[in-house]
Amino acid sequence: MADLERLFAFVDQRRDAFVAELSELVRQPSISSQDVGLEAYAEQIRAVMARAGLETRLLPTAGKPVVFGQRIADPARRTVLIYGHYDVQPVDPLDEWVTPPFEPSVRDGRLYGRGSSDNKGQHFAHLAALRAFMDLLGELPLNVKMLLEGEEEMSSPHLAAFVEANRDLLAADFALTSDGPLHESGRPLLLLGVRGLLYVELRARGANSDVHSGNRSVVPSPAWEMVHLLASMRSAAGRALVDGFYDAVRPPTDAERAAVAQLPLDLPATLARLGTTRLPPPEGLGYYERLMFEPTLNIAGLVSGYGGPGGKTIIPSRAVAKLDMRLVPDQEPEQIFQLVQRHVRERAPDVEVVWMGGVPPSRTPLENPYARAVLDGLADAHGVEPYVVPSLGGTLPDYVFTRILGLPSLLVPYANADQANHAPNENFALDLFVKGIKSTVAILARVAAMPR
Amino acid sequence: MADLERLFAFVDQRRDAFVAELSELVRQPSISSQDVGLEAYAEQIRAVMARAGLETRLLPTAGKPVVFGQRIADPARRTVLIYGHYDVQPVDPLDEWVTPPFEPSVRDGRLYGRGSSDNKGQHFAHLAALRAFMDLLGELPLNVKMLLEGEEEMSSPHLAAFVEANRDLLAADFALTSDGPLHESGRPLLLLGVRGLLYVELRARGANSDVHSGNRSVVPSPAWEMVHLLASMRSAAGRALVDGFYDAVRPPTDAERAAVAQLPLDLPATLARLGTTRLPPPEGLGYYERLMFEPTLNIAGLVSGYGGPGGKTIIPSRAVAKLDMRLVPDQEPEQIFQLVQRHVRERAPDVEVVWMGGVPPSRTPLENPYARAVLDGLADAHGVEPYVVPSLGGTLPDYVFTRILGLPSLLVPYANADQANHAPNENFALDLFVKGIKSTVAILARVAAMPR
Repeated sequence: MADLERLFAFVDQRRDAFVAELSELVRQPSISSQDVGLEAYAEQIRAVMARAGLETRLLPTAGKPVVFGQRIADPARRTVLIYGHYDVQPVDPLDEWVTPPFEPSVRDGRLYGRGSSDNKGQHFAHLAALRAFMDLLGELPLNVKMLLEGEEEMSSPHLAAFVEANRDLLAADFALTSDGPLHESGRPLLLLGVRGLLYVELRARGANSDVHSGNRSVVPSPAWEMVHLLASMRSAAGRALVDGFYDAVRPPTDAERAAVAQLPLDLPATLARLGTTRLPPPEGLGYYERLMFEPTLNIAGLVSGYGGPGGKTIIPSRAVAKLDMRLVPDQEPEQIFQLVQRHVRERAPDVEVVWMGGVPPSRTPLENPYARAVLDGLADAHGVEPYVVPSLGGTLPDYVFTRILGLPSLLVPYANADQANHAPNENFALDLFVKGIKSTVAILARVAAMPR
Repeated sequence: MADLERLFAFVDQRRDAFVAELSELVRQPSISSQDVGLEAYAEQIRAVMARAGLETRLLPTAGKPVVFGQRIADPARRTVLIYGHYDVQPVDPLDEWVTPPFEPSVRDGRLYGRGSSDNKGQHFAHLAALRAFMDLLGELPLNVKMLLEGEEEMSSPHLAAFVEANRDLLAADFALTSDGPLHESGRPLLLLGVRGLLYVELRARGANSDVHSGNRSVVPSPAWEMVHLLASMRSAAGRALVDGFYDAVRPPTDAERAAVAQLPLDLPATLARLGTTRLPPPEGLGYYERLMFEPTLNIAGLVSGYGGPGGKTIIPSRAVAKLDMRLVPDQEPEQIFQLVQRHVRERAPDVEVVWMGGVPPSRTPLENPYARAVLDGLADAHGVEPYVVPSLGGTLPDYVFTRILGLPSLLVPYANADQANHAPNENFALDLFVKGIKSTVAILARVAAMPR
């Protein structure tokens, strides 16, 4: 790591120039859900990639194109596949922004603007790190491929098909993603997986319209039918009762449990922030265990009849339940969907079961060959040991790397915990932006130094 | 009944004049929920009452005044207390009316206009009948008291208190109400009771706002809590499980069962009109039995989380269930509310139970002294035997007469089944309006002829 000090010093010298470059990226809107500015941003970031020494291409998908770049420094070396996304969230409510979302502004050591941290500041941090290598040393320490998609904020509808169709182009030794925030204490994180998702809608029907509950109390009640169906799907003690639901759940490894034991937790304070005082059933499950290792069967929406103020005396004609299930390895959305279908068919055959979406879970073993190098790289940049988080509670399309490409996938979030992504006044703390650039520098240097 | 032929002939002669008078009543708006025109209508109908020989008064309540009239023809005779309401429903959606709601218009033998049948045409039918007696015979055949309230379309919030406070003024031998429609076959009906109502809202709370279902799956779910609470309140087989719920239910008498057996029923056709093919659980209960003699525990509304199109991945922070219960004699709303409260407190003590309203049930025995006379009067006017209906499936404040005043209460609807009350193009078939006037004439004559 003889060069690391020089590389870090170089990054520090270039800090203002990098912030200025990031500001130009933020200035260009690229809102995928509104189809605003994506082509212009794709060309802009492609030029930035090219300045970092990558050969670049825009590759079509069934939606927005992928911006792809690569530099094969030496075919004998390892190859990293860096993932990011170039689309941003919409900006509503506009009047809550202190400065306009696409007029980047530095205040109190933060760069404000839509996309500053999610994800422009994070994928640009990688590119700035590559520039440091190229400018200072004339070459990258390993082979780099970079895939930026334009539809992440729309749940990546075309990413899996793109990755399937481009296995050779994307061949690599490991995947590296920077998205989301560090631990709220400011410590860096290495995230090694995500939970999957299955989203299902149940639809029950009764009479052909809502009817008077007194004069027409002779029709079936889809609300009661739904209540009893749902009650049969999860016990009051919080366990899913869908036959086979837990069969594929892989218990956490000792290493994963050990990593979780290291994570700080002030449970009363955390619950108090959420306005509650107790963990829900089932009993005996810890806070992190619930988020990382347990699947859920959640009612995200339940609607039947009248929900306004006061009363209305009707027998509703319809009842709808929206169920979202967070899945853990090795649960498969398609398989769980079939179990739910069977459960409903056996108990309430008239109730329709509608597939609303599914994303498989993913988890990269803590013992993967790159974990040590990535952890060391984060420690180099931050001067503090990172936390290891075996799984995110939420869902990302990480399975395209682990499952389709068969790669270890390591996630290293660079943003501040109060980044306000998806909200007004999104921002990126500039000291963390610089630490992010240095993190990529150190991670790539550490991986390059690994014995082959 | 020597005079009945002459009285009917008189009514036929006056038909056009009565329709013109009713039209003038319809022309005056009297929308209680919007506080439009009630005072003007009260004065107008009071003048009509006076022309029928009644001494009239406007009596204050905590809301709109009661229009009261009475004529004591002979203190030794029987006294009828006639109930009606002078307020009408709002007129939205206005653009669906063929002619404006307060510009009465006769088309195809019907008078169109808001209030034409609900309830102006029906209370005016009584007044026209009184006029026939006064004009032709110079006196009423029995003593008449008439109570018209101005808040029926707002669920009569002040009627019970008014009746409580005016027991002496309202003292009578029986109550007579005309509201609602005849049987859809056109046959007249004698209705002898109504089901009561208890409306309760259950409110469950979790975190202090909806939270991300992946990253925050550590908070209680009020949706699941509500599902399990509701499932504990009614079995999948359709029976209420609230302890004591059925204890006060009085089984129907043999006479009531016999009356119901006379009612026509084409169950497949009735269910087909409602868009269903089956009676719901519980098994073994007939169509009319459900409507008249069984209490219900209905979910009128159930709302938690996201109900819009597509998906949203949240753990909802609140769940609300609106329960309406139709009660039968001798169930009391207050008592059933306490049972529900106890049930909830034992199973889900955090769930709030809110009283939203209650109306006791009422039922006048078929064997009451006036049933025969009323049935004969209806048959005189219609030329066909009436059906006897022991109870309405719905709810009216009939208990103020049966319970507070201790009177037999007989309900004789005069309107056509397709009257479109509460809807655009409300109307009253004029042949039934005339039969209504004759019905009151014949009922009063028949009661007057009863041995004392």
